[in-house]
Amino acid sequence: MLSKEDYLNYLRKKEANVYVLGEKVEDCSENPVLKPTVAILSKCLELAADPKHSDIMTGTSHLTGKKVNRFNHLTMSKEDLLKRLEHVAFLQTKTGSCAMRCAGCNALCALYSITYEMDKKLGTDYHEKFIKYAKYIQENDLVVGSGMMDVKGVRPLRPHQQPDPDFHLRIVEERSDGVIVRGCKAHQTVSAISHEMIVVPCKVLKENEKEYAVAFGIDVNTEGITHIQQHNFQDSRHVVAEQGSIDFGNIQYGSSFACTSLMIFDDVFVPNERIFMHGEYQYTYPLIRRFGSHARLTEGGCRSRMIDLLIGAGQAISEYSGLDKQSHIRDKLTQLSFLSQSIRGPAIAAAYHGFSTPSGIYLPDSLLCSTSKLQAIHANYEANKLINDIAGGFVSSMPSEKDYRNPVLHDFMEKYLGRVSGVPTEHIIRIFRFIESISMSPVVGALHYGGGTLEAQNVTIGGETNFQEYKKWALSLSGIIPEIP
Amino acid sequence: MLSKEDYLNYLRKKEANVYVLGEKVEDCSENPVLKPTVAILSKCLELAADPKHSDIMTGTSHLTGKKVNRFNHLTMSKEDLLKRLEHVAFLQTKTGSCAMRCAGCNALCALYSITYEMDKKLGTDYHEKFIKYAKYIQENDLVVGSGMMDVKGVRPLRPHQQPDPDFHLRIVEERSDGVIVRGCKAHQTVSAISHEMIVVPCKVLKENEKEYAVAFGIDVNTEGITHIQQHNFQDSRHVVAEQGSIDFGNIQYGSSFACTSLMIFDDVFVPNERIFMHGEYQYTYPLIRRFGSHARLTEGGCRSRMIDLLIGAGQAISEYSGLDKQSHIRDKLTQLSFLSQSIRGPAIAAAYHGFSTPSGIYLPDSLLCSTSKLQAIHANYEANKLINDIAGGFVSSMPSEKDYRNPVLHDFMEKYLGRVSGVPTEHIIRIFRFIESISMSPVVGALHYGGGTLEAQNVTIGGETNFQEYKKWALSLSGIIPEIP
Amino acid sequence: MLSKEDYLNYLRKKEANVYVLGEKVEDCSENPVLKPTVAILSKCLELAADPKHSDIMTGTSHLTGKKVNRFNHLTMSKEDLLKRLEHVAFLQTKTGSCAMRCAGCNALCALYSITYEMDKKLGTDYHEKFIKYAKYIQENDLVVGSGMMDVKGVRPLRPHQQPDPDFHLRIVEERSDGVIVRGCKAHQTVSAISHEMIVVPCKVLKENEKEYAVAFGIDVNTEGITHIQQHNFQDSRHVVAEQGSIDFGNIQYGSSFACTSLMIFDDVFVPNERIFMHGEYQYTYPLIRRFGSHARLTEGGCRSRMIDLLIGAGQAISEYSGLDKQSHIRDKLTQLSFLSQSIRGPAIAAAYHGFSTPSGIYLPDSLLCSTSKLQAIHANYEANKLINDIAGGFVSSMPSEKDYRNPVLHDFMEKYLGRVSGVPTEHIIRIFRFIESISMSPVVGALHYGGGTLEAQNVTIGGETNFQEYKKWALSLSGIIPEIP
Amino acid sequence: MLSKEDYLNYLRKKEANVYVLGEKVEDCSENPVLKPTVAILSKCLELAADPKHSDIMTGTSHLTGKKVNRFNHLTMSKEDLLKRLEHVAFLQTKTGSCAMRCAGCNALCALYSITYEMDKKLGTDYHEKFIKYAKYIQENDLVVGSGMMDVKGVRPLRPHQQPDPDFHLRIVEERSDGVIVRGCKAHQTVSAISHEMIVVPCKVLKENEKEYAVAFGIDVNTEGITHIQQHNFQDSRHVVAEQGSIDFGNIQYGSSFACTSLMIFDDVFVPNERIFMHGEYQYTYPLIRRFGSHARLTEGGCRSRMIDLLIGAGQAISEYSGLDKQSHIRDKLTQLSFLSQSIRGPAIAAAYHGFSTPSGIYLPDSLLCSTSKLQAIHANYEANKLINDIAGGFVSSMPSEKDYRNPVLHDFMEKYLGRVSGVPTEHIIRIFRFIESISMSPVVGALHYGGGTLEAQNVTIGGETNFQEYKKWALSLSGIIPEIP
Repeated sequence: MLSKEDYLNYLRKKEANVYVLGEKVEDCSENPVLKPTVAILSKCLELAADPKHSDIMTGTSHLTGKKVNRFNHLTMSKEDLLKRLEHVAFLQTKTGSCAMRCAGCNALCALYSITYEMDKKLGTDYHEKFIKYAKYIQENDLVVGSGMMDVKGVRPLRPHQQPDPDFHLRIVEERSDGVIVRGCKAHQTVSAISHEMIVVPCKVLKENEKEYAVAFGIDVNTEGITHIQQHNFQDSRHVVAEQGSIDFGNIQYGSSFACTSLMIFDDVFVPNERIFMHGEYQYTYPLIRRFGSHARLTEGGCRSRMIDLLIGAGQAISEYSGLDKQSHIRDKLTQLSFLSQSIRGPAIAAAYHGFSTPSGIYLPDSLLCSTSKLQAIHANYEANKLINDIAGGFVSSMPSEKDYRNPVLHDFMEKYLGRVSGVPTEHIIRIFRFIESISMSPVVGALHYGGGTLEAQNVTIGGETNFQEYKKWALSLSGIIPEIP
Repeated sequence: MLSKEDYLNYLRKKEANVYVLGEKVEDCSENPVLKPTVAILSKCLELAADPKHSDIMTGTSHLTGKKVNRFNHLTMSKEDLLKRLEHVAFLQTKTGSCAMRCAGCNALCALYSITYEMDKKLGTDYHEKFIKYAKYIQENDLVVGSGMMDVKGVRPLRPHQQPDPDFHLRIVEERSDGVIVRGCKAHQTVSAISHEMIVVPCKVLKENEKEYAVAFGIDVNTEGITHIQQHNFQDSRHVVAEQGSIDFGNIQYGSSFACTSLMIFDDVFVPNERIFMHGEYQYTYPLIRRFGSHARLTEGGCRSRMIDLLIGAGQAISEYSGLDKQSHIRDKLTQLSFLSQSIRGPAIAAAYHGFSTPSGIYLPDSLLCSTSKLQAIHANYEANKLINDIAGGFVSSMPSEKDYRNPVLHDFMEKYLGRVSGVPTEHIIRIFRFIESISMSPVVGALHYGGGTLEAQNVTIGGETNFQEYKKWALSLSGIIPEIP
Repeated sequence: MLSKEDYLNYLRKKEANVYVLGEKVEDCSENPVLKPTVAILSKCLELAADPKHSDIMTGTSHLTGKKVNRFNHLTMSKEDLLKRLEHVAFLQTKTGSCAMRCAGCNALCALYSITYEMDKKLGTDYHEKFIKYAKYIQENDLVVGSGMMDVKGVRPLRPHQQPDPDFHLRIVEERSDGVIVRGCKAHQTVSAISHEMIVVPCKVLKENEKEYAVAFGIDVNTEGITHIQQHNFQDSRHVVAEQGSIDFGNIQYGSSFACTSLMIFDDVFVPNERIFMHGEYQYTYPLIRRFGSHARLTEGGCRSRMIDLLIGAGQAISEYSGLDKQSHIRDKLTQLSFLSQSIRGPAIAAAYHGFSTPSGIYLPDSLLCSTSKLQAIHANYEANKLINDIAGGFVSSMPSEKDYRNPVLHDFMEKYLGRVSGVPTEHIIRIFRFIESISMSPVVGALHYGGGTLEAQNVTIGGETNFQEYKKWALSLSGIIPEIP
Repeated sequence: MLSKEDYLNYLRKKEANVYVLGEKVEDCSENPVLKPTVAILSKCLELAADPKHSDIMTGTSHLTGKKVNRFNHLTMSKEDLLKRLEHVAFLQTKTGSCAMRCAGCNALCALYSITYEMDKKLGTDYHEKFIKYAKYIQENDLVVGSGMMDVKGVRPLRPHQQPDPDFHLRIVEERSDGVIVRGCKAHQTVSAISHEMIVVPCKVLKENEKEYAVAFGIDVNTEGITHIQQHNFQDSRHVVAEQGSIDFGNIQYGSSFACTSLMIFDDVFVPNERIFMHGEYQYTYPLIRRFGSHARLTEGGCRSRMIDLLIGAGQAISEYSGLDKQSHIRDKLTQLSFLSQSIRGPAIAAAYHGFSTPSGIYLPDSLLCSTSKLQAIHANYEANKLINDIAGGFVSSMPSEKDYRNPVLHDFMEKYLGRVSGVPTEHIIRIFRFIESISMSPVVGALHYGGGTLEAQNVTIGGETNFQEYKKWALSLSGIIPEIP
């Protein structure tokens, strides 16, 4: 399996068009904006290599019979779905962050199942090609990303009605040995520092939109691809402070959701053997749905545990301030725990009510998944309010580590930021920075990543609810229709 | 198994001190306040007798190897816990109401497990006696109630510090063949119309409170017991309208939570063979906890389905009004579905994470149970707001069926309460009454029944959360303590 | 001014088609369903006659220079608007109920201003006629009701597209001396027990809908009018219990919102001098808007005070239970106070930002009004949850006063429902009934009465918000357009 | 009056111990962390100097009869309170930020009124000295800050029980000509770039804590004072991007709440004429209360308008994306407007119900103020959720302006970030950055600044609510006590 060192070597050597803050990155392992995420991915590889964690970090491939990284493992049972939940919660515990690789796993599962069904129905050979690709990934233990999202232009317009037809990625040229694609995928988590990206459509397509119905796997360093890194408040901090410093808060991994890119496909060639959908617009609906279900499932494990980390930090700062016995503090910590479990519960239930698709891939229950994700959105904002109230104003107004290290200021800060006797002042500073690193950053992420927006959940929940069946029950009880046998 | 007819015969003949609205009830099967609940219990017996539903309505007793009503079945596996969830959801679908018998089942499971542990540790013979009692119930297919709640007097005082020492039920006399108990159990669901009640303490007791640490099973018609029925808005309606009428809303079963009593024990004799705890104060904590966990679990199935019924009624009235395609209506129906699943999800997860006690009884996960129940409290108020907004003002201002049947008024109402062509006006009236019957009544029930108040959930959630473990995670990530291996 | 006795005499003698529970009412002063509301209206007349309260209960008419009941007083200044807020809060304090007469006042103000503007623009003589009518009401101190709501049939259809053209009240015949109207007004508060009703359209109408654009004042006993009383849980209680009894909760006035009717106009003649709009469809928009603004304003005073009453009852039961110092109880009582003020605040602000119309009538600020009302909807459900949690399960399961008066049961209840020494058990029962009477009933009312549903507020708030102006501010600050001077 | 240029000159020349990111600042007008706030203060001075805005930006001093900056104006009437609300809303509109100077104004008003009362009661001469100081400030048009907050150490301990007695600022030496103070004030908005700070106690003190009961005005550049600037995500951005750049979002003023400091008093001399409280512990309660009431009042104007800016930006991005007509978008924009008004309403009401203190200073109503502030806390988190859902993922993952200006990347971004035809891509980028600058930053500020935490509001609301009066109303209506006359 891929070691941390292998991975760092790959990053050092790889030649890709990666831009950060307007400059091309020479060494992806060393860039301050990329580094915290590189550290997360490296940590996950280390954990996967540790026999102590192999149950949670790896699975046995039904394709090869060998142990593979759980991110590259296909969910062939309810247990696999439930394990994925534990997996992301475990990684959140270890890194205080999104583990960054769920989308790749989601895409592998979704395409595996869809290619199977396409071949059965249409006589195509996508599944066979996809199995070969999946084995390649599993055997080389590659880091795989994926992200559906096109830039999408004018939201209500169909792809071909857009001011620019490239607002959704599409095939611009058909060749005998493959296709040329053009477009731009947005919010692509770790595209710059992974090996492969799996590209899928982000919209349910119609017959006259076949050129948009394309799915494929591609080396992220392929000619014609450019990765432009996002720039937000969290990575501003990563530029200002050094990894490992107190100001990082989560000292090795920083503030999460700092590593997505605009991934531009400027007429990129994709060879036939890497193409897994090519015009079959009628399969875009199940493909997107399955991808989304998986994404929402793991949000449950991940976001719930992120709140657990806030609870832990809240418990710590309350003790440091002598407040841990106060009723309103205990009440708020308890509310945080309720919020955490209210995300986790429906996610577990979604996995437990998972079901098999014809290919053997298991999918979680859609209604319960979206419920978990929607609750995660609401809960994250609420959780940030609670932790900020528990912790106090220094979450937003702590001086920097540079101030703390300045000899003129050090004694002042040491003296005045102290609290309960015996607790080092530095610990107090650290825990405030930690709370800042989580609570000030991921809210937007909670909303947009991992299965989409609040509205996307509404659409799914509305779509999954059997309104007519429920109506019958009511009609029967109110005597409008006879009792249902 | 007990047939509906057997049960009604029992009610007709039984001699008990049951009072409704200040008058002693001669025939418990015919009293208008009791009748809707009698109908619910009868319906549940019918369903249990129907082979089509035997999987959900019955289980196989590990004590007798025979099929028993699921309410009298002990939860000896995760599957049993998960089945209980389906069981209450199914009965909610069939009756639009609380099924009334969960507490008896909870008490059976809790006492079974606790008596086992007491005997192992203390050398007592409670478990053997309890098995005999459980078999008696299973084999005679009896209707069993239970309810922890004492009247409790001054809340913060210990039982023996109360202005009246009987504010918690207690042993007032020890005899060679049994004990005499005195006290009053409040909010006792179906105590007046069941066969047996299982009485347990409602407070964690201390060494000097042994006379309060008493648990036993008792025939509800025993001398010295008086049942005074509750009186609330819902049973006011049951007095005013006739069962089966439109005004009942849920035409057979009326508005739920109409059948609890103050159950007074005025120096009642309990024979030794029916006593299952007698002074072992140190077991009151696990007994109460286990009872509570079971209660919260089934609330998940029940309350979630109650919201599904509101969704169904909301779908119906929206169609009748021509509003079912409007975006704000669809949005609110979808929010209702989210609320329903947000209760159900943690309940399923609690069952899935159920665990065995030494006796073999399975308990659901406490933290997830209380999360489901707390969400049920919040969601029920929110759901009522949504359904009332969807349905419109006639939820509270519909004229009565007597108006509708009055020849002078009938044509006016027929004409003016009409909506979409082809929908009979009577259907419109019925669906408003149905929404009234659910949405105007159970909110307080959602809060108090089925595992207790909002605050009770806070206490459990706070108690079940491993704040110190979570703290360690945060300390490790912020560099305060070394990485946790 | 009208004395309580005058009013009761009027009720005793009046001949009207009033139906309650399917039977024609002979004496409107004695019917058990109507009585609590009669008591409220009588109480308000008593208070208006009391010189001690004349500042709040009366105003000086700018039409006659004489003191008139504030419900019949036109709002000719900001102070009048602010006084109205105090007025309804005061009456809520005195009766624990909706004061029932706001809609009449709203209609007087709205029509006064609109008729003025119609006459100025169109040369009609509505305003003069309306002044005569308003003087008639003020000088005879009549009880005036109003309610916009038609039954409305299929919601999205225009009046003349409905399956029945009478789903909105309309002129069916034009005569030289007046018009014949047909239709049905729903949810008409106190129509059966007032003197006059003011009828206005409930929909913004178009040119081809002139027959629906009709407004008039009418004696409620006019031939052709039938009042069918609503029937809900609260009036079920009023049938079962006697006014003055403990079970009434609010012992004189019962549970509010128990007195609306379907008011049927079966070809009713309206003479010309009572017609204040006759085809001027283009004035339906401002008429409805102004009516609605007034309605939402007074909801602020009323609903806020209703929560204050819950706070008071919560304080009482907490003291009776020995819980008033507990942190979670104090916290919940404090949340209730926040909810109360969060309704009241925007209402005061709406009055303070009131503005004059050409006729001199003052209107409150629409955006702030709807904010207050929408907050009232949310807050009432939340408040009920909080008070139910504070008070405990007897809110829904208290035995009846008849049980308490039964000699067999009295001592049991006296003993077991006791709490803190020195607090009579009867007080404990009373306060539970009081909480039931408020918290179990008005939620739907909070939503539908007093300016309409949640969705109606959304429509107003959306309509009143200057999205484009706000946009300019954002564009300027982000450098998209130049700084706004 | 002070011109922008005067102010910048002052900043350039002043000699103070100001530290930013560990380094001493030579020129406070040029430091990138301080600059956006300097721009805000400068802008406010410009606006005050503009005759067009003099009504809102200035008032007439009752001390000097001259026009003074409204931040230095004492609130001597309800109108002054209401003007302050408009004042902060106006400045929020102009700067998209906290105006930074409210606390100084709050301190001026609170101390003016308290010194008056102390002198009347105790025969001291504080008020006379304070008038002289207030005139000095008004006449020189100085920028005045204030902030109560001490670092406070172990929260539940009294000042003199703390591990370090300096955790609350105190007098460490009494001299004939003044006192020496030591301590550290936290979260001191603009202390580094104002002229004067007014220092007051932050805790209600007791008799044995007189050395902590000290209030004074002091030049921020006084020897012994050190200002250590806060460091948070927003100022990290200010380091990384240049003022005026797109990445600033709010291009001139950046993300608000970027300019507080730890203000250390390392044995600082305060001359007698600047001391306004010196041991009168019994006046700390009203002083803190009045300061807090003022602070909460202006939060209402400020935070409400901040949400208006989000509405404006949401309207803009919805138009740019072709989504502005979609029902769920309109619904969310409307919810934002509701949230804005629900903050503003109680603030206006608090001002309208303002009352005079003996000195003539007007205070807003405490209960309504805290209601506005508590609503602001809840609403800001909710608003951020809504705007993030409206706007989409680029709020957190937009590439930087440096990327956009890079010739290799420019065309890609220009092409792919486009939306509706005719809207320049740069505008789309700008509006995302603007939303980021507001929605990603001020939540913690909403909670902590401007009158304190969620819990602080609970304490005030609980304290201000007349629970016993409300109880009497409930007791009367339920027949427990006679009717209240």
